[in-house]
Amino acid sequence: MKVAIVMGSKSDLPVMQEAIDILQSFGISTEVDIVSAHRTPEKLVDFSSNAHLRGINVIIAGAGGAAHLPGMVASMSPLPVIGVPVKSSNSIDGWDSVLSILQMPGGVPVATVALNGAKNAGILAAQILGSQHPEILQKIVDYKNELKDVVLKAAETLKG
Amino acid sequence: MKVAIVMGSKSDLPVMQEAIDILQSFGISTEVDIVSAHRTPEKLVDFSSNAHLRGINVIIAGAGGAAHLPGMVASMSPLPVIGVPVKSSNSIDGWDSVLSILQMPGGVPVATVALNGAKNAGILAAQILGSQHPEILQKIVDYKNELKDVVLKAAETLKG
Amino acid sequence: MKVAIVMGSKSDLPVMQEAIDILQSFGISTEVDIVSAHRTPEKLVDFSSNAHLRGINVIIAGAGGAAHLPGMVASMSPLPVIGVPVKSSNSIDGWDSVLSILQMPGGVPVATVALNGAKNAGILAAQILGSQHPEILQKIVDYKNELKDVVLKAAETLKG
Amino acid sequence: MKVAIVMGSKSDLPVMQEAIDILQSFGISTEVDIVSAHRTPEKLVDFSSNAHLRGINVIIAGAGGAAHLPGMVASMSPLPVIGVPVKSSNSIDGWDSVLSILQMPGGVPVATVALNGAKNAGILAAQILGSQHPEILQKIVDYKNELKDVVLKAAETLKG
Amino acid sequence: MKVAIVMGSKSDLPVMQEAIDILQSFGISTEVDIVSAHRTPEKLVDFSSNAHLRGINVIIAGAGGAAHLPGMVASMSPLPVIGVPVKSSNSIDGWDSVLSILQMPGGVPVATVALNGAKNAGILAAQILGSQHPEILQKIVDYKNELKDVVLKAAETLKG
Amino acid sequence: MKVAIVMGSKSDLPVMQEAIDILQSFGISTEVDIVSAHRTPEKLVDFSSNAHLRGINVIIAGAGGAAHLPGMVASMSPLPVIGVPVKSSNSIDGWDSVLSILQMPGGVPVATVALNGAKNAGILAAQILGSQHPEILQKIVDYKNELKDVVLKAAETLKG
Amino acid sequence: MKVAIVMGSKSDLPVMQEAIDILQSFGISTEVDIVSAHRTPEKLVDFSSNAHLRGINVIIAGAGGAAHLPGMVASMSPLPVIGVPVKSSNSIDGWDSVLSILQMPGGVPVATVALNGAKNAGILAAQILGSQHPEILQKIVDYKNELKDVVLKAAETLKG
Amino acid sequence: MKVAIVMGSKSDLPVMQEAIDILQSFGISTEVDIVSAHRTPEKLVDFSSNAHLRGINVIIAGAGGAAHLPGMVASMSPLPVIGVPVKSSNSIDGWDSVLSILQMPGGVPVATVALNGAKNAGILAAQILGSQHPEILQKIVDYKNELKDVVLKAAETLKG
Repeated sequence: MKVAIVMGSKSDLPVMQEAIDILQSFGISTEVDIVSAHRTPEKLVDFSSNAHLRGINVIIAGAGGAAHLPGMVASMSPLPVIGVPVKSSNSIDGWDSVLSILQMPGGVPVATVALNGAKNAGILAAQILGSQHPEILQKIVDYKNELKDVVLKAAETLKG
Repeated sequence: MKVAIVMGSKSDLPVMQEAIDILQSFGISTEVDIVSAHRTPEKLVDFSSNAHLRGINVIIAGAGGAAHLPGMVASMSPLPVIGVPVKSSNSIDGWDSVLSILQMPGGVPVATVALNGAKNAGILAAQILGSQHPEILQKIVDYKNELKDVVLKAAETLKG
Repeated sequence: MKVAIVMGSKSDLPVMQEAIDILQSFGISTEVDIVSAHRTPEKLVDFSSNAHLRGINVIIAGAGGAAHLPGMVASMSPLPVIGVPVKSSNSIDGWDSVLSILQMPGGVPVATVALNGAKNAGILAAQILGSQHPEILQKIVDYKNELKDVVLKAAETLKG
Repeated sequence: MKVAIVMGSKSDLPVMQEAIDILQSFGISTEVDIVSAHRTPEKLVDFSSNAHLRGINVIIAGAGGAAHLPGMVASMSPLPVIGVPVKSSNSIDGWDSVLSILQMPGGVPVATVALNGAKNAGILAAQILGSQHPEILQKIVDYKNELKDVVLKAAETLKG
Repeated sequence: MKVAIVMGSKSDLPVMQEAIDILQSFGISTEVDIVSAHRTPEKLVDFSSNAHLRGINVIIAGAGGAAHLPGMVASMSPLPVIGVPVKSSNSIDGWDSVLSILQMPGGVPVATVALNGAKNAGILAAQILGSQHPEILQKIVDYKNELKDVVLKAAETLKG
Repeated sequence: MKVAIVMGSKSDLPVMQEAIDILQSFGISTEVDIVSAHRTPEKLVDFSSNAHLRGINVIIAGAGGAAHLPGMVASMSPLPVIGVPVKSSNSIDGWDSVLSILQMPGGVPVATVALNGAKNAGILAAQILGSQHPEILQKIVDYKNELKDVVLKAAETLKG
Repeated sequence: MKVAIVMGSKSDLPVMQEAIDILQSFGISTEVDIVSAHRTPEKLVDFSSNAHLRGINVIIAGAGGAAHLPGMVASMSPLPVIGVPVKSSNSIDGWDSVLSILQMPGGVPVATVALNGAKNAGILAAQILGSQHPEILQKIVDYKNELKDVVLKAAETLKG
Repeated sequence: MKVAIVMGSKSDLPVMQEAIDILQSFGISTEVDIVSAHRTPEKLVDFSSNAHLRGINVIIAGAGGAAHLPGMVASMSPLPVIGVPVKSSNSIDGWDSVLSILQMPGGVPVATVALNGAKNAGILAAQILGSQHPEILQKIVDYKNELKDVVLKAAETLKG
């Protein structure tokens, strides 16, 4: 099982790194690449058409502005595609990337997460794999328990 | 394999029916229920905590306005949760349900689709199952080919 | 009489502290806790279901992003719930938390205050108690007179 | 105990009627009036300054567009003021009334409910009274149970 | 002839100072005061009701957030009222003050200028006086010529 | 004394008629014309440059979409210019005309009124004339009293 | 010389027809096709890569929602691409298509026109051809004169 | 062949410089000027009416706030006009300049690029010239290949 993480520009890497990190913490293999829908359209076609034939199970795609990468990957791959709207410079407060990724037409879904939400994209990819692999599902259960413990401890500290 | 489809109110059914229909067309089992985060919180807890123990693989949750159902289900289930923002009456142009579902905090993703995008939620659920089941993946490939044919035929008609 | 102040994350404390401070300045008892709708759902259920049985009269709940805490508390408690939208990092200019808290469905109100308006949440809680306790109502009258004096003095200084 | 319901124009009555109806269903006394911040400013001052001296415990104020009524009442009354943004004709999608009511400055809160959310304003007023009157609190608990039953029955019908 | 400049808080002074300065550069008398719609409602009534009886010809009112000052002054004064939306801290990008001032109901106009546009408010006040005083109108004509010269000189510099 | 009312297209007339009507009810002379900033730029220059030389005291300009008419008139006339954002078909909810008229740069104010607020534009023009003509000012005072009576009578009817 | 007009779906035709009509009225050859970025990605690649080799000089591309067609064509063609945001059903007030087309990254421009502005797209295409062909430029000059005459005649009618 | 680049204020130069630079890198002649729609309307008329008579083929116009320059130039010139929305200080997040430029009425198109997208405006101008000049078209093809190489190299570096 493997998750591919692609982004439209190397400037997206600081945001997208969180997806890579959380997947690695779950022990899930990743493949990382830069694929620009607008600057490398041939690579886009090649990547999207073949990912499911190369053993990829889930694709995470992040981009900013008029963000076409997630939707274009989804148009050419049968795999579930998770879209991460990245708040780039000159973005109009992030609305452009959010709407460009979220509002896909009928037939071609993109599983959109929050603005700059690459960490959640990674967790969602793990959940997708976990939906049919009990051992990964268990890691998600454990991860949620850790989140809970962090909050409960913070609450304890607050109450002193 | 089974996909659970829940909605916050029976008034969401006309929108959510599209998810049910497309999943049935793929031959995937569905379970449909009304679970209101705000009116039946005990049922919410019960449903969310146990779905993965009852053989559910993916959850689709639709709601309008300050739409908390998808996020609250995601907080209690390790399964992938797909959120459908429903444009309800008195909604502020749909922005409320979109942002209430999309902007989840780190650790608890919801795979958000377009406003009223229940059909895409169903396809995404099928893709999630298909990511590890070749026969379902093939159905997605076939479905995409049908979409393509519809467009190509419309183009032919246009050109006369 | 007691006001409970809960927040979704310890990162909300700098904003929420203003609610605590103003209530203390009115001599009203407070109880402060971290309750995450998404990370500690069991604690959320426990807190919300029992607050009115433990002598709490009003609940103030603050959260950011897709802010579900105020609405979920309101779904399980018969007490008046005041919601504070917190402008968190990665928020889309605060619109997400405002709409997630304000646009509650019929039957489950949340008394929403301005973005980051925790001070006003504290004053509103005091007004709720004061609506039936003349001595607290008098403190509100006095507080408003102080606000007036500050403005009048600033006006004097300006005219110098 | 009494709740005053004021609105800026008689054209707001169809929306505001829901607040009156729900309060009457809880057996709570209401007083209804039209008070325009912009057209009857003297009446505004008179109403706001004296409501708490006339036995009013909670004020619900509804208005559309640049909606100043709720905030101006709050500026002159020590009582809790619930604001209902009304989506009037020529409104910019309701954003004007929502922001004019919600974004009050420090010191003068308005408990804002959803766009056209007069029913929730009535319930919130009842909760405010109920926060210190067990018999009213019980009515809120009963009301929430009725809401739950409606949803559960709809779910039964759906599942057939 | 005199222009009154009022603002809701002394924190608005850095923005509003531009209105004072430009009016002084035109040799027009000004009167400056702090009048808070929400904190000094009696002063608001007194100021608004009497300004035209005291020899004021035009009123400029600036405020931020749920900015009620310009509209409330307009409700009680027959004079033309110019509203300046001030982008305050915790504002939602200035939308709140813009919409609270602009979207006044039929019968009670506020002449709204751009966000933080106090300089333009001063010029507009001078134009209002100038509409019936040729010598002031001439100053406006001169001022516009100066603006033109600045641009033409910048263009010369650019072209080298 | 005369008020010129110009609009960008004859399709704006149903909205702009309200300005004409209210001015006529005040007994103020009006001059009405269609001047399109984008389609009749020479007429725009001619109208704007000469209005103050022809005895016009105030200009009301209404337009929709990317509404440049009010601002362009203001750039060439020393008179006060009142801008009416018109919600045209294909407008993006009126935001385009509101922002195109309101957000004028320093030096060139447009007195903007609410979306479709032509009636208020007419009243504002009367107030501008009235700021230096006691008899017109008195008509404004009378008009406001009529508004008040309408509201007070509606309130009486409501209370039965 | 030839202008290609492509659209993402046959449901875009009623909007896009205006581009075809205006170009035909200028006597400019057109080629019309349906090319869906998301449903016929191979056709998209083929069309975009070859248009300039087939004698096309300008491309007009219209699409709604998360509208990727104009940007993707622009990524693969060296020709000027004009994008028409179409307000489709389930659009969020047209913001999604506007931002998806307008906010293209550096290096890949799309010449965006107004929401549903297909007529202007056609005129712009003619202007692009006319920028180097005097006879087409003259048609634009004539067209603008006709627009002017329509407005001047409407003004005459208005003044009666 | 020549491209004219005009801007409303010298403060727009840092943004607009990118258009100049990219055109120079393509070897295309440019002419740069400051033309303020609001401060130098006569120069605006002169520039716009004569550009096509002076050998200009394409006009790029940049402005911020209520940005009327691009649209007004387009109203008086038969040439293709490219509009660059500039995010100025006191802009409301750039929405004002975007909508003021984009939402032009039927008959008068402006080819709008992204917020602060002057570089793309320059490329678009080159594409317009290139649509009928093979040697310029080839430069665009080469430029796109360079963009591609940059991305491919960044991808290589990422993969290490």
